[in-house]
Amino acid sequence: MQKQKGVSLWRQISDRIRANIAAGLYDASGMLPAETMLAQEFGVNRHTVRAALAALAQEGIVRASQGRGTMIERRDKFDFPIGKRTRFTEGIGDQARDLKGVLLSAQLEPGSSEVRHRLGLEPGDIVVKLDGMRLADGRAVSRSTMWFPCDRFTGIDVAFSETGSITKALARFGIDDYLREYTEISAVHAEPEDVASLELTPGAIVLVTHALNTDTAGRPIQYAITRFPADRVQFTIRS
Amino acid sequence: MQKQKGVSLWRQISDRIRANIAAGLYDASGMLPAETMLAQEFGVNRHTVRAALAALAQEGIVRASQGRGTMIERRDKFDFPIGKRTRFTEGIGDQARDLKGVLLSAQLEPGSSEVRHRLGLEPGDIVVKLDGMRLADGRAVSRSTMWFPCDRFTGIDVAFSETGSITKALARFGIDDYLREYTEISAVHAEPEDVASLELTPGAIVLVTHALNTDTAGRPIQYAITRFPADRVQFTIRS
Repeated sequence: MQKQKGVSLWRQISDRIRANIAAGLYDASGMLPAETMLAQEFGVNRHTVRAALAALAQEGIVRASQGRGTMIERRDKFDFPIGKRTRFTEGIGDQARDLKGVLLSAQLEPGSSEVRHRLGLEPGDIVVKLDGMRLADGRAVSRSTMWFPCDRFTGIDVAFSETGSITKALARFGIDDYLREYTEISAVHAEPEDVASLELTPGAIVLVTHALNTDTAGRPIQYAITRFPADRVQFTIRS
Repeated sequence: MQKQKGVSLWRQISDRIRANIAAGLYDASGMLPAETMLAQEFGVNRHTVRAALAALAQEGIVRASQGRGTMIERRDKFDFPIGKRTRFTEGIGDQARDLKGVLLSAQLEPGSSEVRHRLGLEPGDIVVKLDGMRLADGRAVSRSTMWFPCDRFTGIDVAFSETGSITKALARFGIDDYLREYTEISAVHAEPEDVASLELTPGAIVLVTHALNTDTAGRPIQYAITRFPADRVQFTIRS
């Protein structure tokens, strides 16, 4: 363990343990290694390890269990897989008890040049624009603005609102399968709107995805910009 | 265009145009649409568009060309593709004139539990640890810590230092092809070390990847944690 300037040792240890939990390192047992093992691993004394574990307990990440050691309460972040068949609900599904998609607003509008470019539309074409957010166990995990070509998807706002799922909403329009063509990922500081809707503090980080879904024939069906709180979400790409 | 509280209109327009350039929206011509077109697109007057373009010119993103309109000087960010055959140099390659990989330090060490877990090693196994960074046209675009199983890759520090490329370094060890098994992406605030090495301002955002490469037989050969300045880099995943 190399001393980091201005960061106390127990804080460094708690950061490392948090990262290890997020990495799934201790998943098999659901327990952290014993304090003596952690002390050896990080080359610090048990007192320091105990301070680190107390901090993690306060965050709700671990829980001390009398006589049994330290149990992992939750992984620090939701891990959202991105790939050819990216589905929000399936992707986050087994990491939360309760997943909800909420429609915030819907409107018809002429596609902007960016949206037309992404969806392969012509000037003057109309799109359905949905604003929505997702909650996992009551915590906001994303906020999306989505655009669909109007000629195929008029009424998808109602379908999304009723099902709470884009996959189920698309199914009502005959889309039984769809593919993620690309996902761009960037990170920015939270805008005032993120602070309000994602319950963030000013200065927090937001991961932003720009993503296109196509039907199985390769025709664009949905373009979405989604904002995820970086302290709650990470992405995984598997090949 | 919806007015954003506390952000002047020209600033909002310049943000939108910058995002459009990053999205490759105007790539075909290498020129921005005429001021009158932009004014119409965003529903603002030409004066506001001109102020937005002046700001982008100052950032070096566009350049006014007398009588010919506004040329795009550079996309705002390097776009780093992530997939099965992720290669740093190839990925960023055509977006920069000069790409350099620099070895900062190398050492042999016992693998930590996280590194052993990722590389599928046993307690006591030794790893080669490299610290390095990448420069694109003189700007720092990433800083990596990489671990390789020592039994196969002793001397990879020299190979990387001589070639400036992990792909070329691995080739010297008989690895003619390798695959990206997974890439995890998260975002954090810059640590003091990021501020120094990536030339960032405090409070800046760093995109962090945890990635594993395997040989074609599926054996782990390299685990790397890489930190990218979020204001200079975005990722794209294509299916």
